[in-house]
Amino acid sequence: MKAMYLKEPGTIVEKDIPKPDINEEGLLVEIKQVGVCGSDIEYYETGKIGEFVVEEPLILGHESAGVVADVGEKVENFETGDKVALEPGIPCRKCKHCKEGKYNLCPNVNFMATPPIDGTFTEYFAQPADFAYRLPDSISLEEGALMEPLSVGIHAARRGNVDLGDSVAVLGAGPIGLVTMQSAFAAGASKVIITDIVDFRLEKAKDLGATDAINVQKDDLKDLYGEFDKVLQTAGTSDTYEEAMHLVDRGGKVVQVGTPSADELNIDPNEPITREFDILGAFRYANTYQDAINLVHSDTISLKPLISKTFPLEETEEALIYSSENPEKSIKTMVEIS
Amino acid sequence: MKAMYLKEPGTIVEKDIPKPDINEEGLLVEIKQVGVCGSDIEYYETGKIGEFVVEEPLILGHESAGVVADVGEKVENFETGDKVALEPGIPCRKCKHCKEGKYNLCPNVNFMATPPIDGTFTEYFAQPADFAYRLPDSISLEEGALMEPLSVGIHAARRGNVDLGDSVAVLGAGPIGLVTMQSAFAAGASKVIITDIVDFRLEKAKDLGATDAINVQKDDLKDLYGEFDKVLQTAGTSDTYEEAMHLVDRGGKVVQVGTPSADELNIDPNEPITREFDILGAFRYANTYQDAINLVHSDTISLKPLISKTFPLEETEEALIYSSENPEKSIKTMVEIS
Amino acid sequence: MKAMYLKEPGTIVEKDIPKPDINEEGLLVEIKQVGVCGSDIEYYETGKIGEFVVEEPLILGHESAGVVADVGEKVENFETGDKVALEPGIPCRKCKHCKEGKYNLCPNVNFMATPPIDGTFTEYFAQPADFAYRLPDSISLEEGALMEPLSVGIHAARRGNVDLGDSVAVLGAGPIGLVTMQSAFAAGASKVIITDIVDFRLEKAKDLGATDAINVQKDDLKDLYGEFDKVLQTAGTSDTYEEAMHLVDRGGKVVQVGTPSADELNIDPNEPITREFDILGAFRYANTYQDAINLVHSDTISLKPLISKTFPLEETEEALIYSSENPEKSIKTMVEIS
Amino acid sequence: MKAMYLKEPGTIVEKDIPKPDINEEGLLVEIKQVGVCGSDIEYYETGKIGEFVVEEPLILGHESAGVVADVGEKVENFETGDKVALEPGIPCRKCKHCKEGKYNLCPNVNFMATPPIDGTFTEYFAQPADFAYRLPDSISLEEGALMEPLSVGIHAARRGNVDLGDSVAVLGAGPIGLVTMQSAFAAGASKVIITDIVDFRLEKAKDLGATDAINVQKDDLKDLYGEFDKVLQTAGTSDTYEEAMHLVDRGGKVVQVGTPSADELNIDPNEPITREFDILGAFRYANTYQDAINLVHSDTISLKPLISKTFPLEETEEALIYSSENPEKSIKTMVEIS
Repeated sequence: MKAMYLKEPGTIVEKDIPKPDINEEGLLVEIKQVGVCGSDIEYYETGKIGEFVVEEPLILGHESAGVVADVGEKVENFETGDKVALEPGIPCRKCKHCKEGKYNLCPNVNFMATPPIDGTFTEYFAQPADFAYRLPDSISLEEGALMEPLSVGIHAARRGNVDLGDSVAVLGAGPIGLVTMQSAFAAGASKVIITDIVDFRLEKAKDLGATDAINVQKDDLKDLYGEFDKVLQTAGTSDTYEEAMHLVDRGGKVVQVGTPSADELNIDPNEPITREFDILGAFRYANTYQDAINLVHSDTISLKPLISKTFPLEETEEALIYSSENPEKSIKTMVEIS
Repeated sequence: MKAMYLKEPGTIVEKDIPKPDINEEGLLVEIKQVGVCGSDIEYYETGKIGEFVVEEPLILGHESAGVVADVGEKVENFETGDKVALEPGIPCRKCKHCKEGKYNLCPNVNFMATPPIDGTFTEYFAQPADFAYRLPDSISLEEGALMEPLSVGIHAARRGNVDLGDSVAVLGAGPIGLVTMQSAFAAGASKVIITDIVDFRLEKAKDLGATDAINVQKDDLKDLYGEFDKVLQTAGTSDTYEEAMHLVDRGGKVVQVGTPSADELNIDPNEPITREFDILGAFRYANTYQDAINLVHSDTISLKPLISKTFPLEETEEALIYSSENPEKSIKTMVEIS
Repeated sequence: MKAMYLKEPGTIVEKDIPKPDINEEGLLVEIKQVGVCGSDIEYYETGKIGEFVVEEPLILGHESAGVVADVGEKVENFETGDKVALEPGIPCRKCKHCKEGKYNLCPNVNFMATPPIDGTFTEYFAQPADFAYRLPDSISLEEGALMEPLSVGIHAARRGNVDLGDSVAVLGAGPIGLVTMQSAFAAGASKVIITDIVDFRLEKAKDLGATDAINVQKDDLKDLYGEFDKVLQTAGTSDTYEEAMHLVDRGGKVVQVGTPSADELNIDPNEPITREFDILGAFRYANTYQDAINLVHSDTISLKPLISKTFPLEETEEALIYSSENPEKSIKTMVEIS
Repeated sequence: MKAMYLKEPGTIVEKDIPKPDINEEGLLVEIKQVGVCGSDIEYYETGKIGEFVVEEPLILGHESAGVVADVGEKVENFETGDKVALEPGIPCRKCKHCKEGKYNLCPNVNFMATPPIDGTFTEYFAQPADFAYRLPDSISLEEGALMEPLSVGIHAARRGNVDLGDSVAVLGAGPIGLVTMQSAFAAGASKVIITDIVDFRLEKAKDLGATDAINVQKDDLKDLYGEFDKVLQTAGTSDTYEEAMHLVDRGGKVVQVGTPSADELNIDPNEPITREFDILGAFRYANTYQDAINLVHSDTISLKPLISKTFPLEETEEALIYSSENPEKSIKTMVEIS
């Protein structure tokens, strides 16, 4: 089968490799749709993210859906031909965090497209059956692939305990910002204001239901809307990380999702104390996939409008470059395997 | 001013009384719309509910909205002409429950239309300003009055901690059932199945977005849909109280809202233990009014479709009788004061 | 090796069987101490508990500690000679409940001494390493075995969210009642009143720190102490199940731990609603073992005083009979394997 | 009556003023014991704390207990001669935060000894009855005064959700650190390591039960003990504020109690995200006083060992100076009014 390898920063090569074997609790999945994530781009461009360095050729891609091609002996509930979304992180199931249900914190997780674990820019993938989720007829494979970013949004809304009638600010209107905004509405927020510096993204946010969408190069969110019950930061810049703390009401919650590239940041240490708010990190997600599928199935959350352009598997490198270079006209770029 | 008094069971009389005085932290509110609640009907028909007995003539009505007619000296943020919804229970503000934010549990609460505290089937009412909530232009006075039952629904959804992607059963499709269903959706449920024995109510539930609406005289909910993450019982019958416990998944939550008239009930004591679920009583509400207004303002929740028929103040007795006698064609009956 | 089998109700027989094999993630544990639990006695006397029926000879015993005799290839952190406590329920690790951290609700759990899964009245046992917990030098093997009932108490206190300064009633002063009382104190309760009908147990409770210990055949708890923030029912009778609901303060929590033998029970359905309290089932435990060890190690909780009498493995049947017949002079009976 | 006024930074003067009047819901309290707090010292030395500036002569002191000298007409449950602890912050009871039970966040609170509200370095004080708490015979007036700092510790432990079996680091072993340490143990921690740079305070911490007490000028806490489930920072320095974030385990909670004097601080913004922990501000307390009294009454928490030296009212200035100048031999300095 074909697989697209990151050979070195800036170079994707196609290789022919054997189909993976599956064990008795696994599924062989014919991959059909894979979303391009910012982390794929960062590995492609620089070969590393934080402590993770690509030292051997690596298959990128971790937002994926496909069709079941083979089923392990002990697997129930799946059969050949089922459409499935794949959760990319397989935890150890044995550490304290796994047993407590916070398997996103498992230090021994195998996460697709995080070196040295391969991802899904390829034709077939072996997946433990309990991290595959059947898609109903109402949901396309494209949407299935995007259960991954939606999971980030759901997890952010849960970390912030978004509640009925809350006012919420979402900082950043990229793919994660847009699904976080929708997750905040789905969780009960009656007002969600989203910010960005790219008008295209703000327009998309309005189309998807934002109460208002503010270009922070032109307007000041706090001047316009005051403080918020919850602030969900998805932009990954130092400015938004700090700004989140100024925007939250006393007793509120700030959820930090996007990681700034800066190693350090100046904050006012007294703010969280005298206004007694929470600053809550959010790392990936746990226990979100089935809920994500349910919410798309019930038309509570829309994923199709996020998709801007689709490339074939052979053009994975073009997809990465396109996604990187076109923030002003692209939300989510897909790779399709036919 | 005119006021409609329950003189004795089955008899409402009109009296002319002086307008109430307001204190420095109060508002004088010209009452415009009052919803008829099941408790009003029960007092009208029997003169009592549980330990509460009507011993002196009592003004019924506690789902109310109106227009500010006068403002106490120390009141900020309100002015004459403001449309307001009135929260009917004024707690003591000093007991442990009040201080802990569960003021619905205050043993010293003064609650409209609960003897000996008068309600709002009258022209003017004196209300502490902090239990009045301004209505935006987008919300009518009729809807404002219905923030009260909506508050019950919001409180039920919060007690059940309804979360993103949950499956929920709402038992009973009367006014409380319909707002509870909408609150469950607003809180993140992706599937809400509602039950009743009156087809008219089930149709209304479908119009308001129920995933499905089941007549339990014809079909068995568990056979059709299995178990639910959360079950919210609003029907107030012994059968539904028990059924709620059979319908909930292990680890789930049952919220009991409707009080059966029976003094005792047979339950299987082992069920909540071996399936480790929660049975959670819900009594009135606290800290819901502003959120209710926000959710109607954002079009997340619809109250207008609940209103079936409106009577003038002078026909309060007819409104009570109509509401009692027409469950098969009425959801919420209103009294309008002009 | 020797193993003590329940052949039929009322008959334990000794058999010689091969030592179990371990897999690469397992430990072979030389069992040293096993506590006799009420469920062992019930299986011994009747051959079944609820839906679980002993159809093949079964080794009872699930409160156990021992010494590591062999270590699977992939196991880190353990070596031969380590003292370990064994958590008796091995969940599937793959279902929704396992992934959410509530593995006590796993429908596919393998739980020691629950047919058809054998327990630990035997010389050696193969245990997955991540369900074995190393005991520090300060903790004896006897105490290690009793981490199992202590886990039930810790789980009950957690379900009740026992908080700093709470008043708590614990109904029942058997082994589970006594560890629940200690767990409630450890979680912050400043007053824990315990009840029973056996004075010996109440004396033991006082020795272990009960604020007061009430014989409910002589005195009425509510008359003496009013209502409680939390009520933890461990007695497993219909009376205490109901009484728990009368004893709890509005807004409080009742935790039902003990399962009455009755199939149904009369309750007042309105109580939980008008006083808005929670009734919370507690089934076994999850994520408690390491915490239990920590709390015994820090001398916060005492297990040794619970141990009344010890029998050798060959006298397992005598141990079961002694424990059953001597509630008035026995708390916990142990079986020792030498 | 006598009252000790801060006239200007560095100058306390005695004045004779009339006894305060009480309203119908108030108590007149003869003040007997007042603890000296760091904020009293800061106002004494600099005339301001953050935005709060002493512009008129101000009576300092807010950790106080006394004896009821007169009782308002509507007050039940108190009588002349009762010993009471006084909660120093009287909230508005009407804002969103008050109604939600987080009255420590009330923007309109009147807090003793925070300009322009006078405190209790005086002979009599008028207090709303519901913010006075009766002391049982077992608790002295000195201890009663210290329910205030203990409340800070209880609130910190609650913010951190300290749970059964947790490992906790408390940074800072001053009065707040010592009560926070005890609150963490009371809430279930099985290991509490405390740090400071003053050996006298560390010795006191050991006497009060610290698992270990580390002088961070000599030893590195993380090297010695690794990471903690919860870290409670009470030292109020930039270093400890940052260090708290390095010490917490993934998924854990950092509670920031002490406010550094620095206006800004360098942190690594990625830490809270990739290890997904919470940073939780803690500001004063709410709903702690009765629980604090309960926990001292049950001997769970000891306050007497905190008291280092007592001065008469006339020597309030000496008490402030002594407390400021003797961190190496003083924990809590008291002012006694006879």
